[in-house]
Amino acid sequence: MELIYKGKTKDVYQNDDGQIVLYFKDDMTGKDGVFDPGENQVGLQVEGSGKAGLQMTSFFFEKLNAADIPTHYVDADIEAREMRVRKVSVFGEGLEVICRFKAVGSFIRRYGDYIEEGAALPAYVEMTLKDDERQDPLINEAALEALNILKPGEYKQIAELTVKISELIKDELAQKNLDLYDIKLEFGRDTETGQVLLIDEVSGGNMRVYKDSEYIEPLKLNAFLFNE
Amino acid sequence: MELIYKGKTKDVYQNDDGQIVLYFKDDMTGKDGVFDPGENQVGLQVEGSGKAGLQMTSFFFEKLNAADIPTHYVDADIEAREMRVRKVSVFGEGLEVICRFKAVGSFIRRYGDYIEEGAALPAYVEMTLKDDERQDPLINEAALEALNILKPGEYKQIAELTVKISELIKDELAQKNLDLYDIKLEFGRDTETGQVLLIDEVSGGNMRVYKDSEYIEPLKLNAFLFNE
Repeated sequence: MELIYKGKTKDVYQNDDGQIVLYFKDDMTGKDGVFDPGENQVGLQVEGSGKAGLQMTSFFFEKLNAADIPTHYVDADIEAREMRVRKVSVFGEGLEVICRFKAVGSFIRRYGDYIEEGAALPAYVEMTLKDDERQDPLINEAALEALNILKPGEYKQIAELTVKISELIKDELAQKNLDLYDIKLEFGRDTETGQVLLIDEVSGGNMRVYKDSEYIEPLKLNAFLFNE
Repeated sequence: MELIYKGKTKDVYQNDDGQIVLYFKDDMTGKDGVFDPGENQVGLQVEGSGKAGLQMTSFFFEKLNAADIPTHYVDADIEAREMRVRKVSVFGEGLEVICRFKAVGSFIRRYGDYIEEGAALPAYVEMTLKDDERQDPLINEAALEALNILKPGEYKQIAELTVKISELIKDELAQKNLDLYDIKLEFGRDTETGQVLLIDEVSGGNMRVYKDSEYIEPLKLNAFLFNE
């Protein structure tokens, strides 16, 4: 397998058949040894975190594929920490799409004058650019089109997909009495067909989940979800 | 006249007939004696700046009213530095609407990875909340609706008005070989009719104007515009 990209928490390989393979590392984003999904650097290494991330990602991608939602997921070998995916190109240098059901985190830092922390939001969607140096700036539909990152109509398409995906994940978590506050997704374009697909991973590190109003750390989520 | 609000650069009065009167002060926003339209505090006092601001505001509002664009402007007494306006309520604690023809300032600070400073933008519109403490955060259409600051459909309506107004101002400036890079507008709702109106002022302090690629300071704009 040929290494084609070294990421913060995953490496990307192309195998001899031309198939793209994501390898889930035990690195987590954070600072000074404390996990923070919003951090843009690797802050700690936790044995088993790569496998846990892939287990959850594979679980949700299979549900999503079964619901006919287009994703890059093909299949996964959880023990080997490898996920096979379709080849995609990202939007610009990477576009993050956040869906919020409760007002916490940067939403409160920005709009705290208008809403109480923890108040309900109606599957609100926002997009940010992946840009560590500029702290992943928020971007609106008009700017994404002006900068040729999205084509006209794609913002609405991606926002609608995001709501559908986030609602499905929220419902799955709710079956275990887990409450999804917000989630960060990533999309890309299928290199072959041009179709917009959900890409990257869907794991604890991409979402804020609460149980009885208490925050559940990403690595503890697997135990709740899979009754381990 | 009764003082009803003390602003940074203008005070708001209600006269004996119930008419709203804006008084243009000689205070300008900035820091340490240097003018900066993006600053949220009064940084300097310049004799004549109030009158210059009202002269330009009155000039543009009369052009806009003549073009059937809804504004709060009734009339002005430039020597007295007073502008009579319709009574309005603002959106939330105040909503600022920016139209950009060239990529400079905070647009470059946010999206500089995707565009060169000074590159053309297609009358791009963005909205920010007036919130000094939170540095006037950018906000998208969905959040404005989720926070009940705008009603469904109003974002599009205000964005379209903004483009129309900004194009008119850009064309007026172009007649004097002045180049409008960006402009910050404010809208409100007519207390009586509920109509969305352009409010506040339209002066040098709300726009970045260049001549032969050189930035023209706000107070020098009047001389160019009125051939004084």
